[in-house]
Amino acid sequence: MFTLETVKAHCDVPCGIYDPSAAQLAALSVIRMIDLINAAEKGDDEAAYLNNMARYIAVKEEEAVKCKEEIRIIWGDFIKPAHVETYPEIHTLVHNIMMKGGAAKQHTSREKGMELLAEVNKFAEIFWAIKGVKTKTVTAPSLPNEDIVIADL
Amino acid sequence: MFTLETVKAHCDVPCGIYDPSAAQLAALSVIRMIDLINAAEKGDDEAAYLNNMARYIAVKEEEAVKCKEEIRIIWGDFIKPAHVETYPEIHTLVHNIMMKGGAAKQHTSREKGMELLAEVNKFAEIFWAIKGVKTKTVTAPSLPNEDIVIADL
Amino acid sequence: MFTLETVKAHCDVPCGIYDPSAAQLAALSVIRMIDLINAAEKGDDEAAYLNNMARYIAVKEEEAVKCKEEIRIIWGDFIKPAHVETYPEIHTLVHNIMMKGGAAKQHTSREKGMELLAEVNKFAEIFWAIKGVKTKTVTAPSLPNEDIVIADL
Amino acid sequence: MFTLETVKAHCDVPCGIYDPSAAQLAALSVIRMIDLINAAEKGDDEAAYLNNMARYIAVKEEEAVKCKEEIRIIWGDFIKPAHVETYPEIHTLVHNIMMKGGAAKQHTSREKGMELLAEVNKFAEIFWAIKGVKTKTVTAPSLPNEDIVIADL
Amino acid sequence: MFTLETVKAHCDVPCGIYDPSAAQLAALSVIRMIDLINAAEKGDDEAAYLNNMARYIAVKEEEAVKCKEEIRIIWGDFIKPAHVETYPEIHTLVHNIMMKGGAAKQHTSREKGMELLAEVNKFAEIFWAIKGVKTKTVTAPSLPNEDIVIADL
Amino acid sequence: MFTLETVKAHCDVPCGIYDPSAAQLAALSVIRMIDLINAAEKGDDEAAYLNNMARYIAVKEEEAVKCKEEIRIIWGDFIKPAHVETYPEIHTLVHNIMMKGGAAKQHTSREKGMELLAEVNKFAEIFWAIKGVKTKTVTAPSLPNEDIVIADL
Repeated sequence: MFTLETVKAHCDVPCGIYDPSAAQLAALSVIRMIDLINAAEKGDDEAAYLNNMARYIAVKEEEAVKCKEEIRIIWGDFIKPAHVETYPEIHTLVHNIMMKGGAAKQHTSREKGMELLAEVNKFAEIFWAIKGVKTKTVTAPSLPNEDIVIADL
Repeated sequence: MFTLETVKAHCDVPCGIYDPSAAQLAALSVIRMIDLINAAEKGDDEAAYLNNMARYIAVKEEEAVKCKEEIRIIWGDFIKPAHVETYPEIHTLVHNIMMKGGAAKQHTSREKGMELLAEVNKFAEIFWAIKGVKTKTVTAPSLPNEDIVIADL
Repeated sequence: MFTLETVKAHCDVPCGIYDPSAAQLAALSVIRMIDLINAAEKGDDEAAYLNNMARYIAVKEEEAVKCKEEIRIIWGDFIKPAHVETYPEIHTLVHNIMMKGGAAKQHTSREKGMELLAEVNKFAEIFWAIKGVKTKTVTAPSLPNEDIVIADL
Repeated sequence: MFTLETVKAHCDVPCGIYDPSAAQLAALSVIRMIDLINAAEKGDDEAAYLNNMARYIAVKEEEAVKCKEEIRIIWGDFIKPAHVETYPEIHTLVHNIMMKGGAAKQHTSREKGMELLAEVNKFAEIFWAIKGVKTKTVTAPSLPNEDIVIADL
Repeated sequence: MFTLETVKAHCDVPCGIYDPSAAQLAALSVIRMIDLINAAEKGDDEAAYLNNMARYIAVKEEEAVKCKEEIRIIWGDFIKPAHVETYPEIHTLVHNIMMKGGAAKQHTSREKGMELLAEVNKFAEIFWAIKGVKTKTVTAPSLPNEDIVIADL
Repeated sequence: MFTLETVKAHCDVPCGIYDPSAAQLAALSVIRMIDLINAAEKGDDEAAYLNNMARYIAVKEEEAVKCKEEIRIIWGDFIKPAHVETYPEIHTLVHNIMMKGGAAKQHTSREKGMELLAEVNKFAEIFWAIKGVKTKTVTAPSLPNEDIVIADL
């Protein structure tokens, strides 16, 4: 069964609680919406079809924005120059997440969602390494073919 | 070490992904803010003191609202009449969470935050029981004295 | 002529001012949007058609969310355990409103909107009974066939 | 008993439903918050005092903004040049409401709130006159000394 | 090259910083979205087409709202009765902007966007005249045929 | 006279319109709020004092968030890997802006605001260099001692 084993919320004061899970879940939701968008069938009821499509697209938009936002917050508030010395690739990685998040908003292909998730997973691995927590890769059962990096506590 | 071992986000389409962890974390954040509010010292710099207090209070407000919102969504979208038959106390429990959430906004005593968390934990236990997932109780180390119910997957 | 004869706003402090009218009007707006969605004609200008549909669907979404939100606030902030003893059905009724509100977001049939309004009207009746105010049922003239419960002061 | 006897929501499509009651209630809430702000006592518990003040001020801010917003929407979407010919003072009145709303945000004196309400009431009178609905003036019992113009249907 | 030569942000305290540029740019964005809406081609991939249209329509909506909002703020907070004496047409102008902004939301024709921009430009001219700043008209190169009034400092 | 000579709004589709001015102005507003916070005098009317402080702090919070958000959008949507090759320091610079923005939220000293503005100005210089536009440094007259980089078109 698919689980993300650790989550800690961010509360902006800062209170020392950060977790990339929300960003990973947002990326999974983007993929889920893309799948729904591509599986939707028009049939005879165009109003119902457009209602569904409008809602899937709006949620995809929101979740992609949320994904970028969550990563930006952890990167800006938790990642310090000392961490960047150890993980010098982290700036490029975050920049990629911003670009991939934008692409997932503009497109409806599953590949764009998968690329976003892959980058977010890399960020999560670095985050947990900084925290000294081992991670493992599991497969999300309700979204076949999505691998996600989780903390192994 | 404190961890919430399972998290699944809600994405409103509905996409079948729900998790009470966000509500539990919001309740923990309320407690954290109450602690910061009560520990703040005025000193000579009243501007700095008011800046801190304003931010703690605003985050407490937000997190209490978020806590209520997350529970309302799971209750309204995931809990079906069949679940209510098995757990007839769930409506009263959700109503209590709404009242306790309101009290946590109006007050600054730790007790109000603890009462909110206790009710949210009861909700989480029922949620995981419905999903057939065992739970255990752990203590949040950075927030002494807060016990939190987590899924044991 | 259609009127809602009493309105009192909620202002969250709490200041003792609550009124279910906003929720009733939100439910009426959901119905109004469903009617517009189903009456829209595609014609030759697909851009204009999609512009209209996108706006109707977005407003339907917003109003359904607002309807649930308003009921949740009154239920959580105004309804106390003593009221629940007198009106033990109120929890189930609020749960129904959450479910009907979700259905109205997912669908475009008028029936879903009417079911939402019917439940919200029942809530309004209980609310006004608690306040000791008589209610009557009037028909909204601009939305034929919608009956709405109003306070009779 | 205090009642606003008619309310119709605005739903932005436009769906032909407008009502100044929301703006009147927002102005009443501004006054209510000003009263709470001025009645608050500091006592020994500064945290509790600041929590209350922060919440009253935030609600005052929100309600003043909402008041201006509601008037702006009715003025921009419902009031047509033909109405302006009949009621040439309406532009100046709306401009006053914007200025009075701003003043109510910046100050904590009851007078500022009362001035805002007075202008909003004038706007409501014109609105109902355009709709061909008689109005009367009632006193809000829970907010002593506030007179409010309501439709008499 | 197209430039707006002066910009000052509004910060609501008030801090004395106002500028109509944000409203002009919002009007330009409305026109840009209308152009994208009308240029979009359906092709074989309806999902991609609807994704694009949904995003263009949503941004058009947002920018039209933002345009009205920015003008309302400057009019309500910066324009005083003394300015109205010198520029008695300003109330009617602002009312027109509200109506044109609404029309731009409801329609997809370029003409509606151009009419909105024309009125906003007139407002900018008055604003800069009050500030004693000369203006000139330039052509926005990325949006051919759009003339925009800017401060000539 | 203080002016920012070029502004182009971002509209998220993307429509090719970006400008760092909004971020620079947000940073200036942060400084302006810090000045107001430190100049506020308590006097006899504590309610009025707290009303002012609450509003200054809230605007400081908003403007600091907006500053970070605007930079994040330009960095994520406009800055491409080819630009990073030419300006390899840009990632570190953006990371600094995130950290300085956070510090400006947490503190009330003018220095924190000035540091934020300094970093945002460096970002603006790189942005305009990429666009091939010369910049110059001017002093904001109403905010003594703030130098700001502007495009010289």
